[in-house]
Amino acid sequence: MKRFLDLADLERDAVLDLIGLAQRLEHKPEPQALAGKILGLVFFNPSLRTLSSFQAGMARLGGSSFVITPGQGTWQLETRLGAVMDADRAEHVREGIPVLASYCDALGIRAFADGKDLEADLAETQFNEFTRLVQKPLINLESAVNHPCQALADWKTMDELHVPQRGKFVLSWVKHPRALPLAVPAATLHMAAMRGMEVVVHRPDGYALPDAIMDKARRAAAASGGSVRETEDRDDAMKGATVLYAKEWGSTRHYGDAAADAQLRAKLGHWMVEESWFAKADADCKVMHCLPVRRNVAIADHVLDGPRSVVLREAYNRMPAQMAVLHRLLLA
Amino acid sequence: MKRFLDLADLERDAVLDLIGLAQRLEHKPEPQALAGKILGLVFFNPSLRTLSSFQAGMARLGGSSFVITPGQGTWQLETRLGAVMDADRAEHVREGIPVLASYCDALGIRAFADGKDLEADLAETQFNEFTRLVQKPLINLESAVNHPCQALADWKTMDELHVPQRGKFVLSWVKHPRALPLAVPAATLHMAAMRGMEVVVHRPDGYALPDAIMDKARRAAAASGGSVRETEDRDDAMKGATVLYAKEWGSTRHYGDAAADAQLRAKLGHWMVEESWFAKADADCKVMHCLPVRRNVAIADHVLDGPRSVVLREAYNRMPAQMAVLHRLLLA
Amino acid sequence: MKRFLDLADLERDAVLDLIGLAQRLEHKPEPQALAGKILGLVFFNPSLRTLSSFQAGMARLGGSSFVITPGQGTWQLETRLGAVMDADRAEHVREGIPVLASYCDALGIRAFADGKDLEADLAETQFNEFTRLVQKPLINLESAVNHPCQALADWKTMDELHVPQRGKFVLSWVKHPRALPLAVPAATLHMAAMRGMEVVVHRPDGYALPDAIMDKARRAAAASGGSVRETEDRDDAMKGATVLYAKEWGSTRHYGDAAADAQLRAKLGHWMVEESWFAKADADCKVMHCLPVRRNVAIADHVLDGPRSVVLREAYNRMPAQMAVLHRLLLA
Repeated sequence: MKRFLDLADLERDAVLDLIGLAQRLEHKPEPQALAGKILGLVFFNPSLRTLSSFQAGMARLGGSSFVITPGQGTWQLETRLGAVMDADRAEHVREGIPVLASYCDALGIRAFADGKDLEADLAETQFNEFTRLVQKPLINLESAVNHPCQALADWKTMDELHVPQRGKFVLSWVKHPRALPLAVPAATLHMAAMRGMEVVVHRPDGYALPDAIMDKARRAAAASGGSVRETEDRDDAMKGATVLYAKEWGSTRHYGDAAADAQLRAKLGHWMVEESWFAKADADCKVMHCLPVRRNVAIADHVLDGPRSVVLREAYNRMPAQMAVLHRLLLA
Repeated sequence: MKRFLDLADLERDAVLDLIGLAQRLEHKPEPQALAGKILGLVFFNPSLRTLSSFQAGMARLGGSSFVITPGQGTWQLETRLGAVMDADRAEHVREGIPVLASYCDALGIRAFADGKDLEADLAETQFNEFTRLVQKPLINLESAVNHPCQALADWKTMDELHVPQRGKFVLSWVKHPRALPLAVPAATLHMAAMRGMEVVVHRPDGYALPDAIMDKARRAAAASGGSVRETEDRDDAMKGATVLYAKEWGSTRHYGDAAADAQLRAKLGHWMVEESWFAKADADCKVMHCLPVRRNVAIADHVLDGPRSVVLREAYNRMPAQMAVLHRLLLA
Repeated sequence: MKRFLDLADLERDAVLDLIGLAQRLEHKPEPQALAGKILGLVFFNPSLRTLSSFQAGMARLGGSSFVITPGQGTWQLETRLGAVMDADRAEHVREGIPVLASYCDALGIRAFADGKDLEADLAETQFNEFTRLVQKPLINLESAVNHPCQALADWKTMDELHVPQRGKFVLSWVKHPRALPLAVPAATLHMAAMRGMEVVVHRPDGYALPDAIMDKARRAAAASGGSVRETEDRDDAMKGATVLYAKEWGSTRHYGDAAADAQLRAKLGHWMVEESWFAKADADCKVMHCLPVRRNVAIADHVLDGPRSVVLREAYNRMPAQMAVLHRLLLA
C-alpha cells in the first residue's frame, strides 16, 4: 500500500486485512515497529480525534510525529494556482506541502471542502493537487468528500459488535446549526455498501446526496452483494434497522448558499435522533456517529448516554485502524 | 496510586515517597521506564511550565505525549450537562474527554475555576465531572481550587533547601492587575500545613481564604503537628519567617464581581514584595512563587533577581516531581 | 561546540565539518544517538520549516522535543527589562526562558527583529539577553539579523549542486507586500562570503544593507578569498551569475517607517524574478530562496516551477544541517 486516500482504492480483502492487522496490534503491540519513522500531520481544519489518535498510534508503534496547523503557529497557505500572492497568505502549498513531506516518512493532510462549488468538491480538486505534490506515503485525514480513516474505524467497530454483513444500515441526516461537508456521509455510505449491507439514506427534501456519491456507493454494493437506496420516510428507513448512523450535512440543493440552507433547515428540528425513532428497528439497533456531535440538536442526551450508542467505541477504533494503515504504509 | 488529583488524597508518607522517587530519577534516570506509554494532556487554560515539563518528563522516562488545547487547533468543548448545543461549541466533554482518555495510558487535565460561583468552584464541580468520565490514571494539571503538581514540586524544593519542617511559612497575597483563581493558594496552604509548618496566611481585608480551604489546611496541620492562622498585619506575619510564598488571588468577598474586586485592589499597591518586607524575617528567608509572576507588580525586580528567590528552582522541580507521579501511575 | 548562534562564531573548517556530518547522517542514520535527550523550541514568531525540521531531525536521532509558542496556548512574554508588568503580558522572559531551558538539554529560540530601532536590531539586543539567560546549549532559530540554520543548509545545498567556491553569488532584493527583517539577507551574505564566493548585493535605492552587515561580510570574504560588493544595476549583477539568491527586506533608509517604506516599494514591482533576468547569467544559474516565498510577487511561477529553482532542496537541507548541529551540541 503506497497511499491511504479512499477506501475505494482498496479491494475488499485489503480492507479486511487492515482490520485484522488493527485487531492484532491491539492485542499484540509492536512498540518498535516504526522506530525512527516520522509522521507529518497537516491540519488545514481543526481536529481533536484525528490529531491525538494519530500521534498516540504512531508513538505506540515506536515512531514520532509533528503537527503543522496553518493559521496556528504558522501562516496560512495559499492554494490557488497562479495566484499573485500580495495579500495575507505567506506561502503556497506548492512549496509548503513538498517541504513538509521531505522531513517525514509519511504525511497526513486534512483539508475540508471549500463548500462553494459542488462539482469542484466532488472532484476533490484541492486534495488531488496535494497528492500530486507528495511522492511519499500519504494519508487522507478528511478531504472534500472522503474520510477513509473514519470509514475503516467504523467498519472495524461493526465487525467487533457482530453487526451482520447483510444488516440494514441507515445513514440518517440529522440537525446541525449550519451546513457541514459531505465527507463523512460520502465515506460512510460507500463503506457500508462495500461491507455488503442494505444501505438506506434517510434525508429530508433538499438534502439528497449527489449522484456521484450515490453511484459510487451503488457500484460498491453491486460488487459486495449489498444495496443502496434513499428515502425521506422515517418509518420506511428505520423498520428493521440494525444500525442508525447519524450525520449532519449541508443542503445539496443550495450548495454554498448558507442563507437558503439555513431557511430549509430551520424547519427540520424534528430531525434529532430520539428513542422514539427505534420503535420498529431491531431491538439491538446501534447508534453510530463520527463525532463531534451536537447533543440535543443532532442526537438527544438519552440516546447518546443509552445502550444503543457506540460512538466512543468508534472513536477509540480510529487509533488501531490508523496504526494498521501506518504499519502497511511504512513497513512495505 | 491510581490518580493524582489532590495531595490530600495521599498519606504524608506517600508524599515523601514521591519526593524520594523524584530525587532518585534526577540522579539515576530511567530512560526506558515508560517506553510505549502515552500521556494525553488537555489544556482548557493556557500553560507554559505544565505543558513543557510534562512533555519533557514523559520523554525522559521513554514515553510519549500529545497535547489538546480546546480553542487552539481544536474546537471549544461544551461542559454544561443537558445543554442544547446549537451555538459555537462543537463537542461535549462527555464525548471529548473519554475519547482522548481512550488513546492514552494517563490523562492530564487543566481546567481553571469558572470564577462566578464560589460554592461550585470549592466543590470542584467541573473537575469532578472529568474524574467521573475517565477510568484511566488521571492527573490534575490545575483545577478550580487545586494544583497538586505545584504543591509537590514546592515541597521538594523546600526539602532540598533544608527549610525546617517546623519553619514559619507565610503565604502572602500580592498584587495583580486582576482577580486570579484560588487553586495555588489553596494547594500551597494545604501543602505547607501537611508538611508540618507554622503557616500564616497574610492577606488584606476582603481577601480571606474561604472557610473550606482554611479548614482543610487546619485538618492537615492537626495531623502533621503544624498550625494555620491568618492575619492582615505584615509585621506579625513576617516576623521570623522562613519562607515567604507570594501569590495573587481574587477577592473572596466579591467573588465573581470583577468591578468590586478591582475597586478593592486599586488601593493595594503596597502589597508588592520588596526587600523591606524581610526586616524581621529570618536572615535566610526564601521567596517562593509558582510563576508566572508580574515583575514590579507582585514582586519587585530586586527581590526576584536577588538571593532570596528560589522561583526557578521551584519551576525546575515541576519536572522531576511529575516524573515521579507518572512513574507511580504507570508502573503499578 | 556549546552554542549555534552565528556562523561567524565558527572557523571555516568547523562549518565544513558540520556539513560533512550532515551528509553522513543522511546516508548513515544514527537513530539512537540522542536517545533520552530533549530539545525545547520557543517560537516568538511563526514557523513552518524550522519547527517541523527540528522536531523531525531530533526524532530521527532518537531524541524528543517540545514546542512553546507565546500567544498560542501560552501567554505573551514580557521582554523589557525593569517593566512594571501591569498590562497583558503575564510572564517575563527572565523567568520563562531559564525555566524552559531547565527542562531540556538544548534550547532553540526564534525572535525576529523588533523592526523599530536599527541599531538595537543590529546589536542583537534582544537575542543577547536570551543568551545571557541560558547556560545550556542554545540554537538561534532566527534572530534580528541572523539565521545560521538557514545559512548552513544553503551552504550544504550549494556544495551538493557543485556550485563553484569562487562562483558569482547574487543576493538580490525582491518585492514583498511589506517590509521584512534583515536576518536572512545578513546571514546569507555572510555565508556566501565565508564560502569564498564573488558576492554581489543587488538592491534598489533605499534598500542598501547597513554598513555593519556589509563590513562583517567583507571581513569573511577577506579571510576566505572571496569578495563583496553592491549594485543597483541588474545587468551588472546578473552577468555571469552562478546563483541568484532572492530575498525580501525592508528599506534601511526608512527603517521602522512602514509608510515611507510602502511608498518606496510601490514603484518596485519590476523587482520580481523572471526568466528574462538570466539572459547574461551562467546557463546553469540556480535560483535560491529561504521560503516562504510570495509567488508572482517575489519570484514568478515559471521560475519557481522551472529547472533553475532549488528552493525545495534548500528547505530539505534544513533537517540534516540541523541534525548535525544537534549532534555536535549534545554529544560533546
